Amino acid sequence: MDRNKEPLLLEGERLDDLQRCGYYLIQHPDSFCFGIDAVLLSSFAEVRPGETALDLCSGTGAVPILLAGKTRGEHFSGIEIQKASADRAKRSVLYNGLSDRVRIVEGDIKEAEQWFAPASFHVITCNPPYLKGDGGLHGENDEQTIARHEVMCTLDDVLNTAARLLVPGGRFYLVHRPFRLADIICGMREKGLEPKKMRLVQPFAGQDPNLVLIMGVRGGRPQLNVDNPLVVWEKPGVYTKETLAFYGGEYHDETDGQ
Amino acid sequence: MDRNKEPLLLEGERLDDLQRCGYYLIQHPDSFCFGIDAVLLSSFAEVRPGETALDLCSGTGAVPILLAGKTRGEHFSGIEIQKASADRAKRSVLYNGLSDRVRIVEGDIKEAEQWFAPASFHVITCNPPYLKGDGGLHGENDEQTIARHEVMCTLDDVLNTAARLLVPGGRFYLVHRPFRLADIICGMREKGLEPKKMRLVQPFAGQDPNLVLIMGVRGGRPQLNVDNPLVVWEKPGVYTKETLAFYGGEYHDETDGQ
Repeated sequence: MDRNKEPLLLEGERLDDLQRCGYYLIQHPDSFCFGIDAVLLSSFAEVRPGETALDLCSGTGAVPILLAGKTRGEHFSGIEIQKASADRAKRSVLYNGLSDRVRIVEGDIKEAEQWFAPASFHVITCNPPYLKGDGGLHGENDEQTIARHEVMCTLDDVLNTAARLLVPGGRFYLVHRPFRLADIICGMREKGLEPKKMRLVQPFAGQDPNLVLIMGVRGGRPQLNVDNPLVVWEKPGVYTKETLAFYGGEYHDETDGQ
Repeated sequence: MDRNKEPLLLEGERLDDLQRCGYYLIQHPDSFCFGIDAVLLSSFAEVRPGETALDLCSGTGAVPILLAGKTRGEHFSGIEIQKASADRAKRSVLYNGLSDRVRIVEGDIKEAEQWFAPASFHVITCNPPYLKGDGGLHGENDEQTIARHEVMCTLDDVLNTAARLLVPGGRFYLVHRPFRLADIICGMREKGLEPKKMRLVQPFAGQDPNLVLIMGVRGGRPQLNVDNPLVVWEKPGVYTKETLAFYGGEYHDETDGQ
């Protein structure tokens, strides 16, 4: 931790190592903190040199900052409705010296055109609230509830916004829970984000998957490539080689030089 | 092979061991023969004691005959449009002494009400043609082309028929290729066969899945349980224990006695 930058931290916050290009993320341990979902999403999403990307429901900004570290995309935006999370994301961008490549907006994705032009992004990513209902929202610790439940943003909102803001042929990358897969696939097709690539994520080999990564193309033609499932853990406490590469792997861009 | 029953075989046909209750299937090596798809489908499908089941696109009747051996369902029907296959299926039913529990109909699933009442089956299974287009149908060896390509029956036909013939709450079980998964899931929901359970099938661990098993419930509420993928082969030539149980496993019915 760079003591010189401590002034960017507020009371109770900490700096978490993103294990990528020396980037850190400002988080508050009592609030929603980024998890493996964001790491897997930022590895699953492909941003090619010169492309622009937007992350919906961006939380503390893990995905746009990771993508800025992992890819040669030109510019990354993130939009987050919760003030405290968006504020942490903005300070993390400053902390990592990424102000020229990453922009965080505090706002509602349903009104995204206040900040972004229609059909203007090559890539849109989202790690949305997974659960239906309001999660018993009652004023205490709402920040975590809003990050986990579809209180302020539903799957439908996410798909609508992605469909509006992607260029034709643009790619939408989502991480979600498998139990919503029918909602996800039917919703994507209905909005014109044809599902093209999918990968289940299993905690251990032989276990039921607990995450799904899916990519859709705006206006794509029907044909879904289902990849081999990703197994996260080799044994308790030990990631598989593939997961390890997602966390700390060296910079690698197959489109490099094209 | 029981030499006494040889008269049931026509020129060029053979008896293949279904490895279940001593049942055999009459097949012709130059025509479409049942594969692991039918074995997996008949293991994935649950038919409870007293229930009735219908197999669409039944080919040589592997699925209804296997289900008659594996479950305590009351009655099993199969419908097949190709005369030669339907005829083999009928003779296999005779050969196995199953005439009281299995009925094969030669006909078009789009006109299934000629033989079956609407909303009359608890379970419908289908191992349909997987590929789009006519597969270059040109009169030679059409039997295999029709079994593999959507010439005489499309996915939409299968789903429409299943939705018409299932009782409310009835279960539809399908085996198909993963690349059609968006068509399958969206089509099922559209016809009111809500996807409730899904399992990918990988040839070997770590390989991309090449089959998907999916179950829908007529009028079910949205929530898809995605099971751990099935791995078929332990190593070349050696099935995993789970696959082996599907092929030769002993009779086991969890609902036995209820």
